[in-house]
Amino acid sequence: MKGSVYLVGAGPGDPELLTVKALRLLRTAEVVLHDDLVSPEILQLISPSAEVQNVGKRCGSKTIQQEEINFLLVARATSGQQVVRLKSGDPLIFGRAGEEIEALRRSNIEYEIVPGVTSALGAAAAAGIPLTHRRASSTIVLTAGHRASASRALTNDDADWRQFAAAESTLVVYMPGSGYNEISSRLTAAGFAEETPCAIISRATTPDQRVYRTTVADLHSAPRLASPTLLVVGEVVKFADRNLVEESVSLPEQRIKATFAQRIDASLRADKEPVA
Amino acid sequence: MKGSVYLVGAGPGDPELLTVKALRLLRTAEVVLHDDLVSPEILQLISPSAEVQNVGKRCGSKTIQQEEINFLLVARATSGQQVVRLKSGDPLIFGRAGEEIEALRRSNIEYEIVPGVTSALGAAAAAGIPLTHRRASSTIVLTAGHRASASRALTNDDADWRQFAAAESTLVVYMPGSGYNEISSRLTAAGFAEETPCAIISRATTPDQRVYRTTVADLHSAPRLASPTLLVVGEVVKFADRNLVEESVSLPEQRIKATFAQRIDASLRADKEPVA
Repeated sequence: MKGSVYLVGAGPGDPELLTVKALRLLRTAEVVLHDDLVSPEILQLISPSAEVQNVGKRCGSKTIQQEEINFLLVARATSGQQVVRLKSGDPLIFGRAGEEIEALRRSNIEYEIVPGVTSALGAAAAAGIPLTHRRASSTIVLTAGHRASASRALTNDDADWRQFAAAESTLVVYMPGSGYNEISSRLTAAGFAEETPCAIISRATTPDQRVYRTTVADLHSAPRLASPTLLVVGEVVKFADRNLVEESVSLPEQRIKATFAQRIDASLRADKEPVA
Repeated sequence: MKGSVYLVGAGPGDPELLTVKALRLLRTAEVVLHDDLVSPEILQLISPSAEVQNVGKRCGSKTIQQEEINFLLVARATSGQQVVRLKSGDPLIFGRAGEEIEALRRSNIEYEIVPGVTSALGAAAAAGIPLTHRRASSTIVLTAGHRASASRALTNDDADWRQFAAAESTLVVYMPGSGYNEISSRLTAAGFAEETPCAIISRATTPDQRVYRTTVADLHSAPRLASPTLLVVGEVVKFADRNLVEESVSLPEQRIKATFAQRIDASLRADKEPVA
């Protein structure tokens, strides 16, 4: 009998931002294939009897190809195993799930997609930035920075952002890279006004979270924050929580550590109850 | 002592797509103020001792104003209660959370934003549509249909979609309305090619889910599906799961009913374990 594959979103980082369904699947999976960016706290929630493999491609040292991941998914499911393919954020946004789904369909493997909280939403919540606002933005654009789009072999290396410089939209750049010179020039060239507010959010929803607020003109001199980072550009950044968004200052350590510990505790307590 | 307010995303509909954190907060809240669109299955997860109030504005019969909701949030927290403001999807996307956050800040009420799975991700997962794809789309645009933007008092009634008709982006329209004539004309006027594939997803991730696939040219003759609906426009719709996306045909009833029952069961079992 064939097994099946669940393509599961792990959310933005905080284990408590897993969906209830993702948590259940991690507890019951026989095999978990995960990306680099999935946090250790989340990997700890996987059933101890499951086989866990990092198939991440970002760190550079390993050179696992998308085709190999597709092959692994099909091979494990064909051998009758219940497989979870765990991706940070949501599986259908910048996760190359499309190619994995095509491979599963070609091999007649049953699969299900379990959506997750995409990083943009985690980052916006952490920084107190409403992505839409009736006085500032009616549209949100989610796009990827240079390296990501290049590695994803689009026809053009970079998406054309000129179309998004219009008023009343919020631009969220996934994987903007660690040097902000290039992205700052790209935004200016695309027509974004120099005074447009923007925020870099690093490791959102984790205890290491950092938020740095600046403008398109000054973005090039922003400090390099630890990856993964996310860049939010637009008038809505003006509404960011002033208490949280200080220049490269972290959240109040005590507060976030306490709530983080509580969160993991809550997840683990729920873990004691067997779930089908 | 002042209470606090949690602005919580309820996800796209399926109770098991709540985050672990949202579930914990619903169990421990003293007051829950929720939107119309939050499903009854999710409301059942709220602690029986909590006071629950529907502050939805969509149904038309009630005329609760945003200012009244802001007032309620501040009043309840000021009286020392732990308040959950529950919004469908994610609180920071088309949820007017920005205004509620401003009111809470003005009154020095402690608040926290708990992100959720936004409807676009639930709908895409349910229909098997990868929102980004290396051969088709590097950018996702989330926008709102006519009525929503009008009611939100933007400078222009409708966002200008001309900028989004470029290749390699996916347009997701929240609340496209039940008549598709207008939206079809609007897409054509914005420059979307007539043959651009699109899908209407109704009540995604619930047992009543329906998916209808068509093109921009034929959208006007699509059947009116039950709200809430969501429209996905772009080449990525070609990758939708052929097994799921039949003309106005629902998901295999037995399959979705079984998994839905299992999901609720899993949520409720976890409920027996007290969580701090």
